[in-house]
Amino acid sequence: MDVSYEQVVDILKSERVEIEDIAKLAYDLQKPYIPDLTLKEAIDSVKCVLSKREVMNAIMVGAELDSSARENRMKNKTLQAIIEEDAGLFGVDEIVALSICNVYGSIALTNFGYIDKIKPGIIGVLNGDQIRCNVFMDDIVGAIAASAASRLAHRH
Amino acid sequence: MDVSYEQVVDILKSERVEIEDIAKLAYDLQKPYIPDLTLKEAIDSVKCVLSKREVMNAIMVGAELDSSARENRMKNKTLQAIIEEDAGLFGVDEIVALSICNVYGSIALTNFGYIDKIKPGIIGVLNGDQIRCNVFMDDIVGAIAASAASRLAHRH
Amino acid sequence: MDVSYEQVVDILKSERVEIEDIAKLAYDLQKPYIPDLTLKEAIDSVKCVLSKREVMNAIMVGAELDSSARENRMKNKTLQAIIEEDAGLFGVDEIVALSICNVYGSIALTNFGYIDKIKPGIIGVLNGDQIRCNVFMDDIVGAIAASAASRLAHRH
Amino acid sequence: MDVSYEQVVDILKSERVEIEDIAKLAYDLQKPYIPDLTLKEAIDSVKCVLSKREVMNAIMVGAELDSSARENRMKNKTLQAIIEEDAGLFGVDEIVALSICNVYGSIALTNFGYIDKIKPGIIGVLNGDQIRCNVFMDDIVGAIAASAASRLAHRH
Repeated sequence: MDVSYEQVVDILKSERVEIEDIAKLAYDLQKPYIPDLTLKEAIDSVKCVLSKREVMNAIMVGAELDSSARENRMKNKTLQAIIEEDAGLFGVDEIVALSICNVYGSIALTNFGYIDKIKPGIIGVLNGDQIRCNVFMDDIVGAIAASAASRLAHRH
Repeated sequence: MDVSYEQVVDILKSERVEIEDIAKLAYDLQKPYIPDLTLKEAIDSVKCVLSKREVMNAIMVGAELDSSARENRMKNKTLQAIIEEDAGLFGVDEIVALSICNVYGSIALTNFGYIDKIKPGIIGVLNGDQIRCNVFMDDIVGAIAASAASRLAHRH
Repeated sequence: MDVSYEQVVDILKSERVEIEDIAKLAYDLQKPYIPDLTLKEAIDSVKCVLSKREVMNAIMVGAELDSSARENRMKNKTLQAIIEEDAGLFGVDEIVALSICNVYGSIALTNFGYIDKIKPGIIGVLNGDQIRCNVFMDDIVGAIAASAASRLAHRH
Repeated sequence: MDVSYEQVVDILKSERVEIEDIAKLAYDLQKPYIPDLTLKEAIDSVKCVLSKREVMNAIMVGAELDSSARENRMKNKTLQAIIEEDAGLFGVDEIVALSICNVYGSIALTNFGYIDKIKPGIIGVLNGDQIRCNVFMDDIVGAIAASAASRLAHRH
C-alpha cells in the first residue's frame, strides 16, 4: 500500500493548508538570496517535496495524531492532554518534522528552526488556532517550506 | 501535563516489553567492550534512559500509533494499511526511535542500526508477531537498548 | 587521550570567543520564556554544555579546520577555497554544529536554526569578520548557545 | 568554488578506496531483499550518491582530517592524539558520515549502523590498518554504501 500525491494534498486541505500557503513561506525564505525567484518556482518546489515518500508518510502520521487528539480518540489520555495543551517541551512534533528536513540537507534544518521560531503566515494561523489542535501540522508545514526553500537554494 | 516513569513502564508492559528484556539487549551490545559488566548495571542504564522526557514522549506516541492501528481506530485508512503491513520503507517508525538515540550520541545511533538489522531477543519477538501490530514498538525498544548501551560505554 | 574543559575554553578564547558571549545568546533566547532568568544561570548552562565530550570534540575539530584554512595548511586546495569563501551550501559546518544540538533535543535544533539565520551578538562578529576565517566556529558557538538555552528550558 | 566528481573519486583512490569496493558493500546489504540485483546497479547507485554535493563535501573534510592526522599536520595535538588512537568515543567521524545517510532516509541510517558494527569488506581493511590513520574514511565509506543500498531499496 502506498499513499498518493493527491491524497496528501487532500490531507493538507482538510487541515486547512493550501500548497500556495506553504510556497509563500518558501518564497519569503529564499527571495533575499534569489532576487528573480517567482512564486511559481516556489510552488513547483513544494510540489516536488510533497511527492517524496518520506514526506508523505510524515504528513499522514502528523495529521492522524492531530485529528486523533482533536476528536478525543486517543487511548492514552496523558498523551491526549499533552497534545491538547501543545506542551512546548513535547518534542515529537519537531522530530517528525525534522525527518522531512533531513532529506534536504542542513539549510533545510536551519530554515526550519528559524520558521519554527518566527511562525510566519500559515504557521502563525495554525499555531494561533485556539479551537482546533494543530500540534504536528504547524511543524510539518514549516518543514515542507524549509525543505522547498533549501531545494531552491541548491538549484540556483 | 507530564507523563510519569511508572506510566511509561506500564505502557511497555502492555506492549509485552519488560525492562529486563531491554536491559538484556543493552548488556549483549556492551559486554564485549566491558568484560565485567553486570545485568544489574544494564537494567539501571535502561531505567535512566526511560526517565528522560524525550524518551517517554516517543514511547507514548509509538504505543498510541501501534494500538490505534491494531484496533482499527485510524481515521486515515491508507496509513492504517501501511502500518498493518509493516511496510519496510515507511520510515516514521525509525524516525521516532532515532529521536531517542540522538540524545545519547553517535554510538547509540550505530548500535540502533545494528540491532534493527539483527533483531535479537525481544525485538525479534515483537517483529515476528504475526497477529499483533508492533511497527513502532520494536524500533523504540531497539532505540532504548542502543541508548542504554551507549550510556554504559560513555560511563566506563 | 581526552581533552579537558580548560583546553576547550582556551580554544574558544583563541578563536576570540568568551563563555560570557555564548551565555548572552542563550540568555536572550530563553529570557522571553523564563522572566526571572539570570545571566549567571545562562553562564552555568553554557559551562555544563561545554563539559560534554561530544561537544568538546566538535569544538576541537571545528577550530582545527578553521585554523587550517586560515593558515593555508590544507592539503586539499579545493576544500581550502570552499572554506575561505565560506560557501553557503558547504553544509559540513552546520553538520558538526548540529551534533552538539542533537544531545539537547529538538528545542536546541530549532534554536540553532533561528540563531544561525539571525546571527546575533558574537555570531555576527565572527560571521562578519572579513579577515579571519570562522566557517566552523560561528556555527559551533550558535549550537552551544542553542543547547544551553534548551537545557534551561528543560530545567525550568 | 565547487568540487568535481572526478576529484572526489581521486580522493577516494588516494585513500585506497575504489567505487567497486563500496558497491560490493551496497550489493551485499541489498541482495537479500532484491534477488535480481546486479553489481552494475550497485555501482551506478554509488556513483549517484557520490555526485551529491553534501556527500562530496563530507568526503573532502574526512579525507583532509585523516591525512592531516597521518602527516602530523594538526595544530591541536590533543585532537591529533585522539584521532591517531582512533578513540571509540570520539564521535565526530560518525557525525560526518551520518550527514551522508540523512539525505537517504532512515534505511540508510540503520544500514550504516549495521555496517559500522560488522565492518565488512573494505571497511574492515581500512579499520584494521595499523599503519595508516583512517578514522574518518571507514565511516564515510560505510555511509556511502549504506546510502547507495537505501537508494536501491527505494527504487525497486
